Amino acid sequence: MRPLRVGRIGFANCTPLYLALEEAGLPGVEYVEGVPAELNRMLREGRVDLAPSSSAEYLARPGLYGFLPDLSISSIGPVASVLLFSRHALEDLDGRTVGLTPASATSVWLVRVLLERRLGLTPRYAGPGDGCDAVLWIGDRALREARAGAWPRVYDLGALWHEATGTPFVFALWICRREAFEADPQGVRRVYRALVEARQRAYRTYPQLARRAPEAAWMGEPELLAYWQTISYDLTAWHREGLRRFAAEAAALGLIDAVPPLAPLPVEEV
Amino acid sequence: MRPLRVGRIGFANCTPLYLALEEAGLPGVEYVEGVPAELNRMLREGRVDLAPSSSAEYLARPGLYGFLPDLSISSIGPVASVLLFSRHALEDLDGRTVGLTPASATSVWLVRVLLERRLGLTPRYAGPGDGCDAVLWIGDRALREARAGAWPRVYDLGALWHEATGTPFVFALWICRREAFEADPQGVRRVYRALVEARQRAYRTYPQLARRAPEAAWMGEPELLAYWQTISYDLTAWHREGLRRFAAEAAALGLIDAVPPLAPLPVEEV
Repeated sequence: MRPLRVGRIGFANCTPLYLALEEAGLPGVEYVEGVPAELNRMLREGRVDLAPSSSAEYLARPGLYGFLPDLSISSIGPVASVLLFSRHALEDLDGRTVGLTPASATSVWLVRVLLERRLGLTPRYAGPGDGCDAVLWIGDRALREARAGAWPRVYDLGALWHEATGTPFVFALWICRREAFEADPQGVRRVYRALVEARQRAYRTYPQLARRAPEAAWMGEPELLAYWQTISYDLTAWHREGLRRFAAEAAALGLIDAVPPLAPLPVEEV
Repeated sequence: MRPLRVGRIGFANCTPLYLALEEAGLPGVEYVEGVPAELNRMLREGRVDLAPSSSAEYLARPGLYGFLPDLSISSIGPVASVLLFSRHALEDLDGRTVGLTPASATSVWLVRVLLERRLGLTPRYAGPGDGCDAVLWIGDRALREARAGAWPRVYDLGALWHEATGTPFVFALWICRREAFEADPQGVRRVYRALVEARQRAYRTYPQLARRAPEAAWMGEPELLAYWQTISYDLTAWHREGLRRFAAEAAALGLIDAVPPLAPLPVEEV
């Protein structure tokens, strides 16, 4: 049996889980590094079997993929690393230029849901260049921009979503190619269980993990710990409710045809 | 609408969750204190609506109850507070007297599964008196007995289960009377969401919670933290697999008629 190829994201929000996985060891797995948009593409092309990848990628191609139960990268309220930096109040972005990072699909959809569906605005979208009235950044770039403090207004998209809906926002799912699950269900099961265990270990050992995390060098340990407090690795019924609402909003914007089924892969042995 | 009556267990394994709930506040809720066996009875009699109560209580009366998704009191391996103290090796308990605490239903079933089903023994069972060859203690009493060190052998039932099955063991579910859910689904939903948030807060703030926990006085803060590391508050697909296996073992012993459905209450608003 060839090893499962598991995507690995170098963002600070994933570090605790990967550090804990490393500690435990995970046999029969080969890691493939990338930023979220790269991992999306590699998943789509079959160069990666399983990765913590954009919710939008799953919603757009549910026939190609399944996802692991119980696991996600989410926030229940502020997320700190998915930020819209703006020269104007949100309400005043109508007709103005909003720059969108190419690193993320889900966050781009979320900006559109919040501006177009929630506020009824019609901004112009562009790449994140100098002439923008507002710019969306995610991940470590967002954390660094926030620290630099060059923008008069900073909107946390996790917080805006939670205020609007009362639900968590699911940024990433553990997406698995259906053919990879069918070829090796036991292997995928092993990864799923190792992730549940790694999550438990990570939650209990944040202070120790912060000492070993590469991001501590530029963020500082207390700031890194505070950041990790905002991340939820869970995928509860409440999270799925948020994901379903997001899918319905994306369908209303024409980004997807319909809300796909949100049933996870059957990793339970019965 | 009358307040929901939510059970509250004073065991050290529940303290982080209740401390975090207290911090957040939970409107429309009235707490009722008790040890697990008392809360089982109050749930059964309708004096409590919702409580973190014995899995065995749910398995025995699935028509009366539902349970909240995503939440449990479990261990993935050693649990530290459900212990069989013995003068003999497990294998040598055939025909000998095993004393069973009246405080728990689930752990009593688990001892029987491990001794009778797993090892094929036929011990005699009694209350936890002086003449016992082995005694089952749970909760803070088990923690205290283990510290006293008076027994030559101590078996951790969470560890034995995990070795035997490769799955977590679910000691308690958040059990809700069906009639209470039907009367006030929104109230139950609010408690469910508050618990998901409290769990996230608890996982992130164990060191601060240990300083405020009453058990730190007799356990010591580092020991309390180490103990909390073993508790899983999750109910993942992997946990449900363990619960289903336990139900099948209980049915084989004649403790229940059949494995009941393990679908949680529909707390998602769709």
